[in-house]
Amino acid sequence: MSEEGRTAFAPGHVTGFFTVDRADDPMEAGSRGGGIALDDGVEVRVSPAAERSVYLDDVSVDIAAVEAVLDALQATVEVRAQTPLPLGAGFGVSGAIALATALATNATLGRGLSADELTALAHGAEVQAGTGLGDVVAQARGGVPLRLEPGAPRYNQLDAIPSSARTIEYLSLGERSTPDVLEAKADVISTAGRRALSTVVEEPTLPTFMRASRKFARETELLTTEIREVILDVTESGGTATMAMLGETVIALDQGLSDAGYAEATTTSIRPCGAVLED
Amino acid sequence: MSEEGRTAFAPGHVTGFFTVDRADDPMEAGSRGGGIALDDGVEVRVSPAAERSVYLDDVSVDIAAVEAVLDALQATVEVRAQTPLPLGAGFGVSGAIALATALATNATLGRGLSADELTALAHGAEVQAGTGLGDVVAQARGGVPLRLEPGAPRYNQLDAIPSSARTIEYLSLGERSTPDVLEAKADVISTAGRRALSTVVEEPTLPTFMRASRKFARETELLTTEIREVILDVTESGGTATMAMLGETVIALDQGLSDAGYAEATTTSIRPCGAVLED
Repeated sequence: MSEEGRTAFAPGHVTGFFTVDRADDPMEAGSRGGGIALDDGVEVRVSPAAERSVYLDDVSVDIAAVEAVLDALQATVEVRAQTPLPLGAGFGVSGAIALATALATNATLGRGLSADELTALAHGAEVQAGTGLGDVVAQARGGVPLRLEPGAPRYNQLDAIPSSARTIEYLSLGERSTPDVLEAKADVISTAGRRALSTVVEEPTLPTFMRASRKFARETELLTTEIREVILDVTESGGTATMAMLGETVIALDQGLSDAGYAEATTTSIRPCGAVLED
Repeated sequence: MSEEGRTAFAPGHVTGFFTVDRADDPMEAGSRGGGIALDDGVEVRVSPAAERSVYLDDVSVDIAAVEAVLDALQATVEVRAQTPLPLGAGFGVSGAIALATALATNATLGRGLSADELTALAHGAEVQAGTGLGDVVAQARGGVPLRLEPGAPRYNQLDAIPSSARTIEYLSLGERSTPDVLEAKADVISTAGRRALSTVVEEPTLPTFMRASRKFARETELLTTEIREVILDVTESGGTATMAMLGETVIALDQGLSDAGYAEATTTSIRPCGAVLED
């Protein structure tokens, strides 16, 4: 046990397309689909403390998935998370906090769990909280993960589009509630998600990923008018963009948003590496 | 297809303990065990060319696993690999070259294979060449991978010891031929390897990994007198060291070798990230 506490980082994760795979066991539940892990993510510092507290960007928060992770690790600690990412905008921030909290708490308290056990813990917590289905396992892997089978490690199956630390830009236009949307159109989403995944598995490249994601956004009618306009602007400027699921967010390869005149876009990059303990 | 060529990096990998799992299908063959992916690795540049050539540190080389990867990708390219790691000393250099060549060639020639397909290709090439059993899948994952089941992705099962980019030192005393040793004592190795893996799965931490690795080295009698003396020196200085399988190489956590007076030791670190394309 270290009295000093430990820090862990988990990348943000934008989803291009997905399915909704319900199951009684949260280890089997989750989603198939594809997304991009981002260099912008969440850094979580965990320190031993007299009572439990969780802060996000210095504000006290109550995040169900994080509480569940701390319960499972029997952890009385202070959790301090920092992120440049907007909340509720499709970056998987809750999953990233849950995963980084699991890694840092395990190291701080010497709980002796393996990497996959910690991923499974955060995945199950996120699924049960209803705040995400596939972000955690993608954030544990990094890069451009393809979720071929849903669930936690051991149950799921992952592959990835080979990728470098290519520049990604993003622009968030607002918030969107994850559970409401999932509830309302799970079947339509899953049908379109399976089709998109099959296209990308056939040709696992970034251009195919972006094209399949745009088609998914249209087929599921998750694409809003505002998002559609931004994507069209990027396309007309010769760039490639799509919508981050589920958020009012556009992501573009390279400087696609800046090139289309969206000077307020944020620049990050693909993060080839998954969640990791820091020194 | 890019006329410019692409570069990929694969980490070095030192094995602490392993089993020998033969199978007719190279996708099922391999080994279980545990190792550490290192920031010192192999950078491979692949460029379109009129005829095939492979260079390691600017010397023309014939590496069976690399040739097999290029055959499978039907690639007429120039391959230029650079590494600070010594050859035949237990760092999985041939596996790293094969894997980085697969990633860079796929990107250069637009072959459209997935990350796991490229890992499987390099793994199979390495197994058939007889130059390694488990390095490639470990190098694809990064960190401190535990190979719970042998073989290529889809057939195997990996987990990992949660780890940061902790400092590692290494010292190589000479070369050792992989195939000879494997042939001579596969049964003894596998029995000790299964025992070590079981110990580390029970408590997936770096200190347990190092202890299980030392026990494996003794039980298999792969530990030479020279290596044993260096490990003892590190232990007496309060550090933690073990032998890299299969090489006349000692690895130590932190500055364990320097602290024990081995000023000629090389410093690197654990590389939490696996093999990756570069920009």
